[in-house]
Amino acid sequence: VSAKAARTCEPPISDLIARALHTPGLISFAAGLVDEEMLPAKEVAAATRRVFAKASGRLALQYGTTPGLPALRQALVAHIAKLEGQPAARMGFDADDILLTTGSQQSLYLIAEALLDPGDIVIAANPSYFVYTGTLASIGARVLTVPMDEQGMQVAEVGRLLQKLDAANELSRVKFIYCTSFFQNPTGLTLSLRRRRELLDLARRYSRGHRILVVEDAAYRELQYDGRALPSIKSFDRANQYTVLTQTFSKPFAPGLKLGYTVMPPDLMQQVLRLKGNHDFGSANLSQWLALDLLRSGAYRRQVQKLKKQYTRKRDLLLRAMRDSFPPGIQWTMPQGGLYTWVTMPANVDTGPNGQLFARCLAQGALYVPGEYAYGPDAHGQIDRRHLRLCFGQVRTRDIKEGVARLARAMTAVLGKGEEAGRG
Amino acid sequence: VSAKAARTCEPPISDLIARALHTPGLISFAAGLVDEEMLPAKEVAAATRRVFAKASGRLALQYGTTPGLPALRQALVAHIAKLEGQPAARMGFDADDILLTTGSQQSLYLIAEALLDPGDIVIAANPSYFVYTGTLASIGARVLTVPMDEQGMQVAEVGRLLQKLDAANELSRVKFIYCTSFFQNPTGLTLSLRRRRELLDLARRYSRGHRILVVEDAAYRELQYDGRALPSIKSFDRANQYTVLTQTFSKPFAPGLKLGYTVMPPDLMQQVLRLKGNHDFGSANLSQWLALDLLRSGAYRRQVQKLKKQYTRKRDLLLRAMRDSFPPGIQWTMPQGGLYTWVTMPANVDTGPNGQLFARCLAQGALYVPGEYAYGPDAHGQIDRRHLRLCFGQVRTRDIKEGVARLARAMTAVLGKGEEAGRG
Repeated sequence: VSAKAARTCEPPISDLIARALHTPGLISFAAGLVDEEMLPAKEVAAATRRVFAKASGRLALQYGTTPGLPALRQALVAHIAKLEGQPAARMGFDADDILLTTGSQQSLYLIAEALLDPGDIVIAANPSYFVYTGTLASIGARVLTVPMDEQGMQVAEVGRLLQKLDAANELSRVKFIYCTSFFQNPTGLTLSLRRRRELLDLARRYSRGHRILVVEDAAYRELQYDGRALPSIKSFDRANQYTVLTQTFSKPFAPGLKLGYTVMPPDLMQQVLRLKGNHDFGSANLSQWLALDLLRSGAYRRQVQKLKKQYTRKRDLLLRAMRDSFPPGIQWTMPQGGLYTWVTMPANVDTGPNGQLFARCLAQGALYVPGEYAYGPDAHGQIDRRHLRLCFGQVRTRDIKEGVARLARAMTAVLGKGEEAGRG
Repeated sequence: VSAKAARTCEPPISDLIARALHTPGLISFAAGLVDEEMLPAKEVAAATRRVFAKASGRLALQYGTTPGLPALRQALVAHIAKLEGQPAARMGFDADDILLTTGSQQSLYLIAEALLDPGDIVIAANPSYFVYTGTLASIGARVLTVPMDEQGMQVAEVGRLLQKLDAANELSRVKFIYCTSFFQNPTGLTLSLRRRRELLDLARRYSRGHRILVVEDAAYRELQYDGRALPSIKSFDRANQYTVLTQTFSKPFAPGLKLGYTVMPPDLMQQVLRLKGNHDFGSANLSQWLALDLLRSGAYRRQVQKLKKQYTRKRDLLLRAMRDSFPPGIQWTMPQGGLYTWVTMPANVDTGPNGQLFARCLAQGALYVPGEYAYGPDAHGQIDRRHLRLCFGQVRTRDIKEGVARLARAMTAVLGKGEEAGRG
């Protein structure tokens, strides 16, 4: 096999999925899937009818183009501008700067492929979205991490890291900073407004011999339940030079269309388009025609509203159940959007797949994602093993309380407080 | 940019497409698109209704899995077995050995990515499908070519090449032999039955230190208009060890689903799945659910029949018009299937994009694909420039005669026989 294939590991989550399938009655807070009862079957069926009712609609079944359907890219310019609260022209991009991909994952992959040679450096938050850090490792990149706090990625630490790399003459290997800026997977945390500007400034400042990009993953952006809507990092990059912004139809609408979209600087677009030409010369055209209809008809907007309502309810149920039944000494994040909360156990607990807590949760019939999957080594080479990710996306509303009770019993047992085991 | 991005060129066809767009009234035999009037809008609309009529149908909008929908992979085992005229078990594969991808191009890409490091060797026919040889070059592979004749790729020449590489101690760099075995793009030629066995035997025989695969691209297989249906090379590989077989819904049904499928040996599948996990963790799920319905309902089969009828008509019109109006001294293939015929001009004619013939055709209002796009250098480093590819897929039936007349006028003029220019 190729060197790249040899570097490409089985994703750790595969093992979890296999365990879940072999445990009947399991309540899973693990997989990052969406709410199944809310999948917009009627809306997509109606969109299909509308598309094919017109004679031109049959072109949805022809080959598309590598960048994707022009009218959809145009509609997405307007969509992003609305989210940002300002016209796209003020942010220096138009439809030519938008790429449609097979989910936003493909876009993130292509950007990594366009920019990274083995040994190159990507800076990311710790923890980060583990599918993508796995992808980066497969390409041979070194992922250097900085810690997070309640305001998201610690941008001051990014600055210190860049300074250190500069001093060590390694700045030339740094190609981009990866940041999930809204309701991050896995923590649910959001990068503060101030840090958005600061991160972009850092990228600009250190783009000396070559450009250092900010790759902003905004998959969860539209699933906001409370708080003030923030502009993207991209929105401050007035000439569309230093940031890439990826969004998707998967989380705010439906994963089955498998459609992501990305705004990127024109020179990067040129490189990425050539690569995508070799990968598949364009994502599924039918999905693109449907997405265009869904945006134009308002069905997309209505579905986002419905999902926000449903996920707000599920998040509230989850957080309340945790508050009511988790034993003392455990902390968790209060996400204002997205699908995740991030739980921190006392320092002596190992949440890993071979640890006691994981085994006891499974025995109780509940599944979570061990935090170590999302952690790279910190500056001292240590991996933090006391966290876990809970996803309230797919779990059924009626199972949340019972699922949390099961987690709570396992936690209580592991923390040596057997007498509280029945509390939930 | 990365070394890979630096190796990745603009596909030559882009320039053709741009020229076509800027020439109103052009009759194009260039793009490998399918017949637009035949796109199965009603059939796909009906399939969508059927899928969403069931409550389970909304799962078409959830995430799928990386290998693809199990029921569809199962249905495709049966579909391939029917094409081969023997049960899949006799060919050593089942649904676990089938991967669904974003068109068969993605599968061909992933296989190259899994197997090739820069400097590795792929053996291909000359000419070959140029999108894929471009992909191989982007990955850094060396594509060594062997000539074709009326029976397809000259397999004896593959044997001689392997022998030579063995003697030069380069056999370890040879990873696979790429062969479009049915109605090849660009020539329309088919590998003979005898050569199918011989090619597999060669791959087996030279798989000493490592395996040398046959990658069989069968995109056009189902679009057969005359002659006897041949089994695939894969069908002779009883233990599913030495061949990869790629097929697609794009050519025999509709490109807009963007769905390809591939049978491959289990160990290769494992590598490819990991890579695909990083690319996109699964192609569009909705397309897969629709494809399953289309296969089960018989709509797929009926569409293949319709397309075969239509393309037979177009092929016959094209070949008749060529016979009636092309000046003497020109030869072309008589394809029994697929979408292409391959035209050979006298040796002194340069069909390239900067040659006289191309310019004159464009001036007349007709477009073809220059043969040099599909040619690698031969054993003497020469590129043959006297061929051109005509595609009868997208051109409208009523435009074929006029389009050929325009080509004929240009050819006549270039061949210095101006007095025949008006004949068509």
